[in-house]
Amino acid sequence: MGIVLGANQYGKAENRLVRIHRETDRHEIRDVTVSTALRGDFSAAHLAGDQSDVLPTDTQKNTCYAFAKSHGLGEIEDYALALARHFVDDVAPVQGARIAVDELGWERVPVGGSGHDHTWVRRGPEVRTTVVTVDAGGAQVVSGLRDLVLLKSTGSEFAGFLVDGYTTLAPTHDRIMSTSLVATWTYAGGAVGAGDVEWDRTWADVRRILLERFATVHSLALQQTLWEMGKAVLEARPEVAEISLSAPNRHHFVVDLAPFGLENPNEVFHAADRPYGLIVATITRD
Amino acid sequence: MGIVLGANQYGKAENRLVRIHRETDRHEIRDVTVSTALRGDFSAAHLAGDQSDVLPTDTQKNTCYAFAKSHGLGEIEDYALALARHFVDDVAPVQGARIAVDELGWERVPVGGSGHDHTWVRRGPEVRTTVVTVDAGGAQVVSGLRDLVLLKSTGSEFAGFLVDGYTTLAPTHDRIMSTSLVATWTYAGGAVGAGDVEWDRTWADVRRILLERFATVHSLALQQTLWEMGKAVLEARPEVAEISLSAPNRHHFVVDLAPFGLENPNEVFHAADRPYGLIVATITRD
Amino acid sequence: MGIVLGANQYGKAENRLVRIHRETDRHEIRDVTVSTALRGDFSAAHLAGDQSDVLPTDTQKNTCYAFAKSHGLGEIEDYALALARHFVDDVAPVQGARIAVDELGWERVPVGGSGHDHTWVRRGPEVRTTVVTVDAGGAQVVSGLRDLVLLKSTGSEFAGFLVDGYTTLAPTHDRIMSTSLVATWTYAGGAVGAGDVEWDRTWADVRRILLERFATVHSLALQQTLWEMGKAVLEARPEVAEISLSAPNRHHFVVDLAPFGLENPNEVFHAADRPYGLIVATITRD
Amino acid sequence: MGIVLGANQYGKAENRLVRIHRETDRHEIRDVTVSTALRGDFSAAHLAGDQSDVLPTDTQKNTCYAFAKSHGLGEIEDYALALARHFVDDVAPVQGARIAVDELGWERVPVGGSGHDHTWVRRGPEVRTTVVTVDAGGAQVVSGLRDLVLLKSTGSEFAGFLVDGYTTLAPTHDRIMSTSLVATWTYAGGAVGAGDVEWDRTWADVRRILLERFATVHSLALQQTLWEMGKAVLEARPEVAEISLSAPNRHHFVVDLAPFGLENPNEVFHAADRPYGLIVATITRD
Repeated sequence: MGIVLGANQYGKAENRLVRIHRETDRHEIRDVTVSTALRGDFSAAHLAGDQSDVLPTDTQKNTCYAFAKSHGLGEIEDYALALARHFVDDVAPVQGARIAVDELGWERVPVGGSGHDHTWVRRGPEVRTTVVTVDAGGAQVVSGLRDLVLLKSTGSEFAGFLVDGYTTLAPTHDRIMSTSLVATWTYAGGAVGAGDVEWDRTWADVRRILLERFATVHSLALQQTLWEMGKAVLEARPEVAEISLSAPNRHHFVVDLAPFGLENPNEVFHAADRPYGLIVATITRD
Repeated sequence: MGIVLGANQYGKAENRLVRIHRETDRHEIRDVTVSTALRGDFSAAHLAGDQSDVLPTDTQKNTCYAFAKSHGLGEIEDYALALARHFVDDVAPVQGARIAVDELGWERVPVGGSGHDHTWVRRGPEVRTTVVTVDAGGAQVVSGLRDLVLLKSTGSEFAGFLVDGYTTLAPTHDRIMSTSLVATWTYAGGAVGAGDVEWDRTWADVRRILLERFATVHSLALQQTLWEMGKAVLEARPEVAEISLSAPNRHHFVVDLAPFGLENPNEVFHAADRPYGLIVATITRD
Repeated sequence: MGIVLGANQYGKAENRLVRIHRETDRHEIRDVTVSTALRGDFSAAHLAGDQSDVLPTDTQKNTCYAFAKSHGLGEIEDYALALARHFVDDVAPVQGARIAVDELGWERVPVGGSGHDHTWVRRGPEVRTTVVTVDAGGAQVVSGLRDLVLLKSTGSEFAGFLVDGYTTLAPTHDRIMSTSLVATWTYAGGAVGAGDVEWDRTWADVRRILLERFATVHSLALQQTLWEMGKAVLEARPEVAEISLSAPNRHHFVVDLAPFGLENPNEVFHAADRPYGLIVATITRD
Repeated sequence: MGIVLGANQYGKAENRLVRIHRETDRHEIRDVTVSTALRGDFSAAHLAGDQSDVLPTDTQKNTCYAFAKSHGLGEIEDYALALARHFVDDVAPVQGARIAVDELGWERVPVGGSGHDHTWVRRGPEVRTTVVTVDAGGAQVVSGLRDLVLLKSTGSEFAGFLVDGYTTLAPTHDRIMSTSLVATWTYAGGAVGAGDVEWDRTWADVRRILLERFATVHSLALQQTLWEMGKAVLEARPEVAEISLSAPNRHHFVVDLAPFGLENPNEVFHAADRPYGLIVATITRD
């Protein structure tokens, strides 16, 4: 039984890139972190140290910066697709490319009632994401967001659960529900191929729906809330093939103030760091 | 020459506390991290392990949670003053107390055009801060903010600087200026003693001024921008005795695209992590 | 086309657990972070908020702590297998369980030439890991380590690589090579089933081999070094079915000191944070 | 009442520098992070944006790298003193300089029973530190360490403490005591001036003493342990004028396993992240 090289890829991770559009005095900003990874037959590099088919990661970095000028950097999905197609089409040994882009949000500093032309303050901690993969099978686009921290102070229950010999938790019909959401959704291949997805608009609409459903669903379980959020996205956006949600349950415990002669009707909470519940679900089309 | 105990203090750090005000269906939220530190003559604990004058840090934690109910938790400066005065006034061995509060920002989730009654999304990464110290000399309040990340894409120069044998930097008349601001301002003792500072309103106004001056000052140096920001705060807010600003200079380097046949007139930047310039200044009254 | 629930799981993440064995005055310590995830048909919880098949994550946490006493916590793979089998065997709706354990290293504080009986100092930053999955198909064990930071100051080249229009990098025949290694290896199913793997001994031996090969292979590329490291592990340890290595290339750039009249023959380096190369490879058996 | 510039300084923070000594085939490594800060009359830069007295932070960075070659980088205190004296002596407007150096530890990779010539693995998470300040009053050296994580599984009590209306804690005569120590000690001015401190040897000896006393003192309180640790350092090292210790009390709570029919005689602990006690003390000479 021999020893062989299995799956492998390589690239340059976390290229920090800020693109300013300054065609007019009212500048625009895109602040991104780009990671590249190339796939192909790189066995000579592994087995013999022969680099002749290896495009250096330093070159991949240069390409990220150059494309921000030559192709432009507007919608991150469009930029990532251009980069990925370049590596696959123009660099002979490359058979597949995976480009991941994180985008940080900025908003204009308000001055005298309106947003300043060239000064911004960071919004956050939320990050917009995309992962684009191009290979012989075509292009796949998975966009999303992470670090979207949400909290509702009522409208959430947890009761009627399975009890075994290790169960000490009391059921509750009114609790804080809070999470730091990670959402990723896959665009339908046909829509990507046709080039007719409005990336920024779809992203904003999915985010809006996720927020609204988190707020308005009366929750019997975090699982149920995630399902309702994902279902609403799929109902509203036909170009989204499926959506995955990963939601830590950031526990807020009601503090027992009885020893100090005080009532605490869900007013004072201890916000715990660890451990946390972690619920993961994919909502898809059949 | 003997060995003696010098300055010392002890307390409970980073109590994570969320306070929901639910008098009506439209809830309010305060999300804070509270750290306590007590001072006094605790030499018996150090030299002999005698705890009879030591109020446990666990008790200090309990007090933070209890006061969030009994005193309430609205403006963080008011809450911290109440806590500090309690420890000094009510716990015999305590001669001084230092209460630090960090507050995380939340904004209501928009649903159907208006903010939801009991669901929020985290604003950030900015943190509002206060450090309150109470001892025999009275109360001192130092409020502020940190992680306020700012960027302007033009209107910033750096030229005419001192040159020595280790200088290779070229002067520039147009660059990105970006920082992650830490600001702390000390309230005038008289205003604190009289109890007539409107903490939330002053904090919001100082923040507004800092943002506006960062945006509108044409900068010849980060030093100059900090001075103008601090001066404007002192001019507008008589209750502020002095302000200190600590500003990392988050460097954004213009990427050289000439090897790829591309111009780069301040459009594509590499955002560096480390090292960074660090400028610190206090603006005060004479 | 309907909307349906896809893959899903839930559990309690990052339970921080320290187990002291104090049968004799010479104590032993195991310091672990345990994460559980359960799989099965939980569609009622998602679609209807019905929790009757849901074992609370709080119960899962309790079980982690209880098993550290009732089963004991020695080798982390053994502990994780016991936990996973319990959830699958004893909790009716659970069809699969995934238990991840991170272990932090401690070493005895030296006192008078030998290690103290009950006092330790943290070794690190390295973390030992295992992920155990149990379902109808049996048990899979994937162990490993992460944050193993390595550096060699010579014996590493990078030359003869592919050049395109975006390449500016110069080849080098002597450079620093440094990485923060993540290694995960899958134990052969037969060995796991037979229960005859010596987990601690194998882990220590794999680590030793990885270190030795990193040191002694003259490297023409990080890819080649990873291949040689993985191959040596598979050659030495028949119970290891395959190994995956993820290695950031932590770049150390030779600083140009010529402007200051100084030579720099690979003596003074700038250690960069981002971006970094990222090489990923699996070495397996055919 | 006018508005004036108060205290201010500026510099380059977190220059990441690795110095390889390769005079023989057995290389040596020093891995440091250097931060500079200059003081003087820089009011023209603040008030008028006039940089003519401002040595750029970029130049300060260059100087750090150049001195690692021209002066050498062995003991970090020696290197920091050379840098600080250069800025004060050779750059006219500079009246004071503060150089902070963090050093990361590495140990040789064992190969065939002995340490490899040019390959290391990171020790950690501990960091060695120094802060050197030079001005007209001479040189001050404050060295130390941080992130030294310690734990003892017995030999620690906490009882007989002050009780008030907010106290719920039970006294204990056997608990885990754990901390992540920060220690900083100031060298006597005379010893620094005379240039006869053996920096590496003293640092290692102070660290040894801190570890030994943490292990061997039967602790009635963390305060008492800190006092005994600091006193032992001052007794052993006359060149140390005073030492400050900052010790988070990393709480380990005994888990209540009684609901599951299990005893827990200090064997299974929950390691909490926040909040934590924080004890700070200076031990000095009178």
